[in-house]
Amino acid sequence: MPDFFFLCLEILGTIAFAVSGAIKGVRKKMDVLGVCVLGLITAVGGGIIRDLVLGNTPPITFIKPRYAIIAIITSIIIFLPFVRKFLAHHKHGYELCLLITDTLGLATFSVIGVQVAYAGFSNNMFLLIFVGVVTGVGGGVLRDMMSKNVPDIFVKHFYASASIIGTILTVLLWNPLGETLAMVIGFVIIVALRFLAAKYHWNLPTIHDENTDL
Amino acid sequence: MPDFFFLCLEILGTIAFAVSGAIKGVRKKMDVLGVCVLGLITAVGGGIIRDLVLGNTPPITFIKPRYAIIAIITSIIIFLPFVRKFLAHHKHGYELCLLITDTLGLATFSVIGVQVAYAGFSNNMFLLIFVGVVTGVGGGVLRDMMSKNVPDIFVKHFYASASIIGTILTVLLWNPLGETLAMVIGFVIIVALRFLAAKYHWNLPTIHDENTDL
Amino acid sequence: MPDFFFLCLEILGTIAFAVSGAIKGVRKKMDVLGVCVLGLITAVGGGIIRDLVLGNTPPITFIKPRYAIIAIITSIIIFLPFVRKFLAHHKHGYELCLLITDTLGLATFSVIGVQVAYAGFSNNMFLLIFVGVVTGVGGGVLRDMMSKNVPDIFVKHFYASASIIGTILTVLLWNPLGETLAMVIGFVIIVALRFLAAKYHWNLPTIHDENTDL
Repeated sequence: MPDFFFLCLEILGTIAFAVSGAIKGVRKKMDVLGVCVLGLITAVGGGIIRDLVLGNTPPITFIKPRYAIIAIITSIIIFLPFVRKFLAHHKHGYELCLLITDTLGLATFSVIGVQVAYAGFSNNMFLLIFVGVVTGVGGGVLRDMMSKNVPDIFVKHFYASASIIGTILTVLLWNPLGETLAMVIGFVIIVALRFLAAKYHWNLPTIHDENTDL
Repeated sequence: MPDFFFLCLEILGTIAFAVSGAIKGVRKKMDVLGVCVLGLITAVGGGIIRDLVLGNTPPITFIKPRYAIIAIITSIIIFLPFVRKFLAHHKHGYELCLLITDTLGLATFSVIGVQVAYAGFSNNMFLLIFVGVVTGVGGGVLRDMMSKNVPDIFVKHFYASASIIGTILTVLLWNPLGETLAMVIGFVIIVALRFLAAKYHWNLPTIHDENTDL
Repeated sequence: MPDFFFLCLEILGTIAFAVSGAIKGVRKKMDVLGVCVLGLITAVGGGIIRDLVLGNTPPITFIKPRYAIIAIITSIIIFLPFVRKFLAHHKHGYELCLLITDTLGLATFSVIGVQVAYAGFSNNMFLLIFVGVVTGVGGGVLRDMMSKNVPDIFVKHFYASASIIGTILTVLLWNPLGETLAMVIGFVIIVALRFLAAKYHWNLPTIHDENTDL
């Protein structure tokens, strides 16, 4: 059951991340290929960085290309004129839908990152946490670097923070509670934090005092 | 014979890519070192990404540094004042020359990428195609990320598309026709597509309808 | 003795690089997490690229997380309001302090990069030099790519050049003089070149003649 649950979420997360990449490409007036490449990189980029760091070569993405294929198809759909028109006319619903799917993707990929790292390096907590967070946020960082933006995670309220907190929880609970429960709890925490942050406009401390220019 | 043919093309491709990186550096008013680094990264970057993905460490570039050395020498030549002056005074011929060498480089590196990946992962078509395309376009993407541009492949007519089509052909023809013929055909197709696209101003579908802002 | 000397320098270099990354984040109005991530990447990024290129996975940073922890703590300290205020009010002293620590970091990481590469690839001079330079400058390049700047090394006087010259010296002197002496000489040369360049405003040749637009 939990395997099937995570498989569904992984597909949903892949689609959500591909949508966010493809939309960025559309906004930058890229052609259909650029939109597909950006959607693909956003969806599978975090996993590729994870596998390079862990020495799993070639990365899983290439051995099981199903997620890459899902990402490409999703990007093409976003590029279709009537889809873009539909999204543009339903901005509110579409922003909400993007927040939900993107959050599910972030949560899924973070805990799956921990799971993949655990297979080989169960005794290195720092590595487990890092790999979980990188898998969760890596695709978005690559997307922003390639489309000439300061990566979102540096400015967006409580995005990477949610991933970090959930990942640490998963790692800490892994031995006492077992793999499945640890992953589910980490997942729920990330989703809850992101939604609460969006609803109540939580933000991490930032700098407002203009008189202390560095 | 084909080995020698591909060796010549690889050298030509290295020079062409180094030229395109060095010129970008000159345009950004970089110093001589920056120009060399950008020329070097453009020329060998695709191969380094390819080798990291395949787990070939250290990357071939470092084991056979001849291409890196060619790229550095090329970049220094581009930086010389009289070379820059000459290029600036012959813009038309120089744009044409850049298009030709750059296309030859793209085509060569794409099919060589497939060849390198084939040595270890002949049964994974998706990986072969991906690695071919990355080897072909990777250097240019790194160049653009480092010089603060949206990567060319996202906006330039039919650049990565030509590489993708040629790489897929090479992979599909590898078993029926044999290595050499598959590589030559993929190579010719990439070159032909790029030249036809440049001549007839082919472009992939892009977005002109400003009223569907996402 | 030399081991302890290099340990101290490595800690100092980590702090200096984290400071430079964190300050960049503060200037870009990032939140506390963004500042920490940027500080962390600047401090450990060069070493991660080095280990990926050499095939040392997972990178040393994760196996010995002490440097990562130092970098995170340093970044948090920079983010504290009174620290920022203090730095903003002592610009001259702070610029000088940044130059000194940053130079020590560059020099340390460059020669340590050679040392790490030497363990496995002592017979490949090109690789040794490349790995030394990448370890020295890699973190700063990642920092600049992520914060949407043309990397400093392409425009800053004599930064990467100092690393390249010192690294080549270390590699050349390794066999005749032994590890420790080669590293110390390379280190001293990098520091001396950087300080002399800063004091006498050395610059590599760059392009001033606006009439040769490429």
